Amino acid sequence: MTLSLYSDEQYMREALKQARYALQEEEIPIGAVVVMDKQIIARAYNQTEKLRDVTAHAEMLALTAAANYVGNKYLADCTLYVTVEPCVMCAGASFWAQVKRVVYGAAEEKRGFRRHGNLLHPRTELATGILADESAELMRQFFAQRRK
Amino acid sequence: MTLSLYSDEQYMREALKQARYALQEEEIPIGAVVVMDKQIIARAYNQTEKLRDVTAHAEMLALTAAANYVGNKYLADCTLYVTVEPCVMCAGASFWAQVKRVVYGAAEEKRGFRRHGNLLHPRTELATGILADESAELMRQFFAQRRK
Repeated sequence: MTLSLYSDEQYMREALKQARYALQEEEIPIGAVVVMDKQIIARAYNQTEKLRDVTAHAEMLALTAAANYVGNKYLADCTLYVTVEPCVMCAGASFWAQVKRVVYGAAEEKRGFRRHGNLLHPRTELATGILADESAELMRQFFAQRRK
Repeated sequence: MTLSLYSDEQYMREALKQARYALQEEEIPIGAVVVMDKQIIARAYNQTEKLRDVTAHAEMLALTAAANYVGNKYLADCTLYVTVEPCVMCAGASFWAQVKRVVYGAAEEKRGFRRHGNLLHPRTELATGILADESAELMRQFFAQRRK
């Protein structure tokens, strides 16, 4: 199978790399990248333990880094890729940034934003289920390790 | 009238001071403080323009500063005072931090979290309407200036 260099899957693989860094550092393994004009302009993984800061989710760090790169707090030409369904906080941040698209991998029924309705910006498109199994598998690994 | 040093009103006055700093810097005038054991451990005001970062709401900056002070991402003994009803993002952050109480001044019917249901942590108490008029007046001033 050949994969387009610019496919959702390909960008999600980069987000998964970030998630694996989180796993290595014993953080909940969620990774994110922000893409503009086909180029990855920000990469981040969850660092809530290391930074002792609940706001340090992968998406938040990636959106802040992307805004810094673009020089604009609005990211209307950007797509946020994240391995797991964003929480309410991160959905809220993507609302304010007015991102063009949010693409996530695995659903998160308990802490994901979707059970609270559509919290995204009306102009934001949503795509789900991209590399969902790989994304969910990392989460399972993390929680299995932690229970030991 | 004598005001208790440790009343909600008194802490909200400190949050209002922060909101006024925001107004001076042409930011949307919202201020926040975090209180633990009757002591203010963090103060912040909205800096989304200066930092070009949608995540730089007063509450987010205050929660991050408070976690840094406490050395713990959980703020279960802390009260977050904020002059205006938090948005979805900030309600989500206070959920993750498991703050003991959220106290806000003015309601924000359009962008406040409450229209999306109760997004706070089940253990978080909510108090509203503390110095609501002063808080709302600052917002009115800001938007009146901006329309000119």
